[in-house]
Amino acid sequence: MNIRFISARILTMKDEEEIYEGSLYTQDDSIVYVGPALTEAEEAQKLPAGYKPDRTIDCGGNLLMPGFKNAHAHSGMSILRSCADDMPLSDWLNTQIFPREAKLDAQMIADATKLSVLEYLTGGMTACFDMYLTPESEAQSYKDMGYRAVLCGNLNNFSSSVEYTEEMYDKLNHFDPLISYEIGFHAEYTCSDELMRSLSDMAHRHNAPVYTHLSETKGEVEGCIERYGKTPAAYLDQIGMFDNGGGGFHCVHMSDEDFDIFKNRGLSVITNPGSNTKLASGIAPISTYLKKGINVGIGTDGPASNNCLDMFREMFLTTGLAKLREEDASAVDALEVLKMATVGSAKAMRLFDADVLDAGKAADIIMIDLNQPNMRPFNNIAKNIVYSGSKSNVAMTMIAGRILYMNGSFDDSIDVERIYTRAQEIIDTIR
Amino acid sequence: MNIRFISARILTMKDEEEIYEGSLYTQDDSIVYVGPALTEAEEAQKLPAGYKPDRTIDCGGNLLMPGFKNAHAHSGMSILRSCADDMPLSDWLNTQIFPREAKLDAQMIADATKLSVLEYLTGGMTACFDMYLTPESEAQSYKDMGYRAVLCGNLNNFSSSVEYTEEMYDKLNHFDPLISYEIGFHAEYTCSDELMRSLSDMAHRHNAPVYTHLSETKGEVEGCIERYGKTPAAYLDQIGMFDNGGGGFHCVHMSDEDFDIFKNRGLSVITNPGSNTKLASGIAPISTYLKKGINVGIGTDGPASNNCLDMFREMFLTTGLAKLREEDASAVDALEVLKMATVGSAKAMRLFDADVLDAGKAADIIMIDLNQPNMRPFNNIAKNIVYSGSKSNVAMTMIAGRILYMNGSFDDSIDVERIYTRAQEIIDTIR
Repeated sequence: MNIRFISARILTMKDEEEIYEGSLYTQDDSIVYVGPALTEAEEAQKLPAGYKPDRTIDCGGNLLMPGFKNAHAHSGMSILRSCADDMPLSDWLNTQIFPREAKLDAQMIADATKLSVLEYLTGGMTACFDMYLTPESEAQSYKDMGYRAVLCGNLNNFSSSVEYTEEMYDKLNHFDPLISYEIGFHAEYTCSDELMRSLSDMAHRHNAPVYTHLSETKGEVEGCIERYGKTPAAYLDQIGMFDNGGGGFHCVHMSDEDFDIFKNRGLSVITNPGSNTKLASGIAPISTYLKKGINVGIGTDGPASNNCLDMFREMFLTTGLAKLREEDASAVDALEVLKMATVGSAKAMRLFDADVLDAGKAADIIMIDLNQPNMRPFNNIAKNIVYSGSKSNVAMTMIAGRILYMNGSFDDSIDVERIYTRAQEIIDTIR
Repeated sequence: MNIRFISARILTMKDEEEIYEGSLYTQDDSIVYVGPALTEAEEAQKLPAGYKPDRTIDCGGNLLMPGFKNAHAHSGMSILRSCADDMPLSDWLNTQIFPREAKLDAQMIADATKLSVLEYLTGGMTACFDMYLTPESEAQSYKDMGYRAVLCGNLNNFSSSVEYTEEMYDKLNHFDPLISYEIGFHAEYTCSDELMRSLSDMAHRHNAPVYTHLSETKGEVEGCIERYGKTPAAYLDQIGMFDNGGGGFHCVHMSDEDFDIFKNRGLSVITNPGSNTKLASGIAPISTYLKKGINVGIGTDGPASNNCLDMFREMFLTTGLAKLREEDASAVDALEVLKMATVGSAKAMRLFDADVLDAGKAADIIMIDLNQPNMRPFNNIAKNIVYSGSKSNVAMTMIAGRILYMNGSFDDSIDVERIYTRAQEIIDTIR
């Protein structure tokens, strides 16, 4: 399907402040033109030979921009949303989450993943970086729904293995154009030294980056120092885990040495402010990351700990919490946050072709409805998205050239009622 | 107009945890029945004699609940949204806000107020407590749009006067059933001792409560202690300002004595976490207010400082920031927050007839769309509203029995395009 978008405002995120009026053309799964409106003669000249649009969408001045990328999620946890809240973290995990997760099978997780995809689509998120229990069944769900996903290894002492991680690495990186897989493990505190060293060896065999939960809570850092005499980042770096890059999820409690490791290894920080807030984990030092030139992406974390999958919430929290932490209303400019939620997350997820709007890039595009009161008047549209934007402003979500969500409705290929029904059945089974 | 809602889930907020299936009937501006579904025979028995519905709305299992009340706002500032952000507070006020506000006239403020009302309607807020510059023109806008508002005096050394405040108190409390007026002043730091004593005298003449910005920033508290040897709450209490109750907006930096004053005088705290975050003012001690039994309402503050008018954001922040402040994930239960945003705010605004869903209460009702992925599965619907709810879930906003917003569209009486155009004209004039 080739789609021609006309009368759009366009924010390419190549330069996040520049918004211009123009057109955008997609061909199959890619963008073939973005720029000023074209006459018919210019279309013949500037578009691929023989290009014909199957559909023209008049944007009526609404904004096209790259989709948000959710750089840390546990999509299969959607069924646990609001099944337990307002509890201390350890009680919550041990009495509410772990016992229920133990009852989940691959099909349940596949179905629960689909519920999260629906939510991503309503919020303009065009890809997610998903660390959960059954990557094959999850990948199948994403493929079925036409959703772009990077699956992440979830190795720990209790489930998965280095062999399984390597098998998934080979398999899921050749599974579907929408799917990729990165090596990952749950966290230092859930893996033995031996297991992590073995994973590090495997990552070296593939010259591949590694991702993990890192320094989410004070207790985690203290425990690691007790075990290894070092912070998690320093310990992992010492065993070579980050020799080929990668990144850390959360990164709330970081030392000066940790900052240097992230900088020197080119690691990405994936911040999860909604979850860190709800679980009282603390406020990440985003200002410092920016000052040091460390790449920052944004994730929602899982729907049991957040509980919603809403990049607008995360963006406001990313700048707002930094302002509180620094006691400085100028900390972490909103435009930096917009960059994190799109380009920064894409970089962290290694979606190098799905970061900005440009010819040759993936057609992962959202339309922001500016004809709503929270977007008026037009003073600074980009800042409006961060400070007053809401999921209700998402008028369209397109992934790889397919419109999966538009004006409140999902693509006909998606059986929404079936997904809702299954989600309820699953939680009622395992409750 | 009489409306019969059937097949609804209902959260009356009389007991915030109880959600049941049933029906709700409105007659003119009031609720006449809420409870289990009625047969035709029961309708004849339980509804007012001769009651006939003009319209029946099948809620399809969606949730009816009391509208959110925005207990602190400066609605006329909507045109300044995103005209300046990411700046230190004093620069922001002195170089960006004050110079532009000085150019606003009553008509501009009336028009800007209407833009905020549109935003309140999209977010399910059925009333606001508005402190701004031209209460008469603001009241007219609210009346024109059918919106419930409590205007609040904005007395300070530079504008308004005790006489004008008293005039407005008499006039706007008899202006329209949707409108009321409360005595208020901007803040201790913008009023002279003499002015505040004179206002306190006036409040005593009317046995009326008084409202003000209070202890929003550390600097404000330190300044007051320097001027009067006391915190703002203690100083104001000493001059009798709170003898008839009232409340404080923000209340971020409070002493133990301040807590006692609020408790003993029956004052309301109106918390504004979005604004306090964006302006780096700090985190209010909500846990302490709850423990001491102090009434807490929630407000958005103005759209220049927040920048959006979204109770879902404020609710998440109210509990989330408390959790961060207390380093305790169980701090400030979500159900307490839902109560603050409805009943607590209504109490603070003295909207005693618009707090809960019950026969005889005002028909200020919203419908929450549960057929969206962020509301599934059904584990705890009330907590879902706080933790994963969004403006996109607001399917209907009704005020005094009139549906002003439904399924993304405003009532025909509202000229939305005209409001957008005027907002743009105003900011382009004063920029």
